[in-house]
Amino acid sequence: MSLWKSVLITGCSRGIGLQLVKELANSNGRPATIIATARNPAASTALQDLSKTYAGLHIITLDVSSEKSISSASEEVLSIVGSAGLNCLINNAAIGFPTNISNVTPEAMMANFQVNTVAPLFVTKAFMPLLQTAATRSSGMGLHRAAVINMSSVLGSITLNFGDGANFRSYAYRTSKAALNMVTRCLAADLESSGILCMSLHPGWVRTDMGGPYADLTVEESVSGILSVLFSLNEQNHGGFLDYRGENLQCFACLDAHTCSGGFCEE
Amino acid sequence: MSLWKSVLITGCSRGIGLQLVKELANSNGRPATIIATARNPAASTALQDLSKTYAGLHIITLDVSSEKSISSASEEVLSIVGSAGLNCLINNAAIGFPTNISNVTPEAMMANFQVNTVAPLFVTKAFMPLLQTAATRSSGMGLHRAAVINMSSVLGSITLNFGDGANFRSYAYRTSKAALNMVTRCLAADLESSGILCMSLHPGWVRTDMGGPYADLTVEESVSGILSVLFSLNEQNHGGFLDYRGENLQCFACLDAHTCSGGFCEE
Repeated sequence: MSLWKSVLITGCSRGIGLQLVKELANSNGRPATIIATARNPAASTALQDLSKTYAGLHIITLDVSSEKSISSASEEVLSIVGSAGLNCLINNAAIGFPTNISNVTPEAMMANFQVNTVAPLFVTKAFMPLLQTAATRSSGMGLHRAAVINMSSVLGSITLNFGDGANFRSYAYRTSKAALNMVTRCLAADLESSGILCMSLHPGWVRTDMGGPYADLTVEESVSGILSVLFSLNEQNHGGFLDYRGENLQCFACLDAHTCSGGFCEE
Repeated sequence: MSLWKSVLITGCSRGIGLQLVKELANSNGRPATIIATARNPAASTALQDLSKTYAGLHIITLDVSSEKSISSASEEVLSIVGSAGLNCLINNAAIGFPTNISNVTPEAMMANFQVNTVAPLFVTKAFMPLLQTAATRSSGMGLHRAAVINMSSVLGSITLNFGDGANFRSYAYRTSKAALNMVTRCLAADLESSGILCMSLHPGWVRTDMGGPYADLTVEESVSGILSVLFSLNEQNHGGFLDYRGENLQCFACLDAHTCSGGFCEE
């Protein structure tokens, strides 16, 4: 029996989202139901092809920045998962491009906040009843119960934005991901009593359309690490910020990346 | 001779902005030129009255979320400060109201990002030539040279948003102030070579229209503390996040609020 019954991933037409679907569909630890969403799934041949190889894969349309689209998608998901609820929501859809002090515009900032910060919050709100349903059926914290994973970035770490860590200049992307990390912490406070784990995850710098050709990691390396992290999540990671290797980018209290759990550690 | 020649403060029609102008105009450490801006300064009798008591006080119209208004205001400020440039910009204008998980809306989130995060960045960009002019005339870091002060909030600290620190629920305000703290860090990286100090400041929880009647501090207590902090700023505070008592809300590296300077400490 699998650890979890269902997962929903946003932004699956390409990049990390597509690879997450592909690896999950082929893994032993796959849930019976994988729901892959994209703004325009029909345009992703790769995603359509995957649905032919795994019957448990459902592809639905979701524009994360449209309230109407979120509402339709949540009805569709309810009809798929039914009374079992949803075990895991991965807020992966995002936009991003370098915006330095010279070329940053208010429009670029607002567009990044809309898609990278506001959308994950309202997607999470829409699926909260289904996450709560799944959470009532178990105890502890992790994929076996219910979890919200916000795909963030080390570039959203305020702490690490200095020295070499400040070399990549992007006002719009960095601020939107810092704000997303705050959404994670706010949600962690609000969802704790329901037993829904909430955390931020840095996938590494990955050779996708967004990461560009000079990035450190292949999408396979990143996603393989992400899945290991997801499978080992527990209550110590609630409110935390891990990278694809499971290392803490910021222990919010003690900042010791090697010995603490990265969540609400109070050491 | 005063430490500094000029300061510009946004959001001066009431609250902390108005009190900053009042105390500065009456202080020994006042600069020759105090520029108080507000969206609609004519509506603030208190601000108009102040201009009658201090000849060095200039009141100008600035809607921080309007590019056109920022552009007009920066021309007006250039005509006031001339070739001396501007020693200090205090990004104080902000909005905020509680937005919990139930009543938060995308519109509230976007409005807070617009005024509390995006506006301070573009106001700073507009005044950067004047800050750079002032910075060329001196060395070290502080009000004697050039400084950008972003009025933030402890509610913007991702680190401190847990336990009792998470009691005040406000997705829109907290995310916008976390993102502002990221703007501070990005600006700190970009402005360092020009010698322009950039930091975030938490004024305390103050009994203003925004803070409400149950807040901890009178506006006089907060502003008196803020001025002490401003007058003692130096290069160790660059990139930092201090409260009105001069305590670090977050040392970005060592998190030791009592022994380090709160900036780019690498202890």
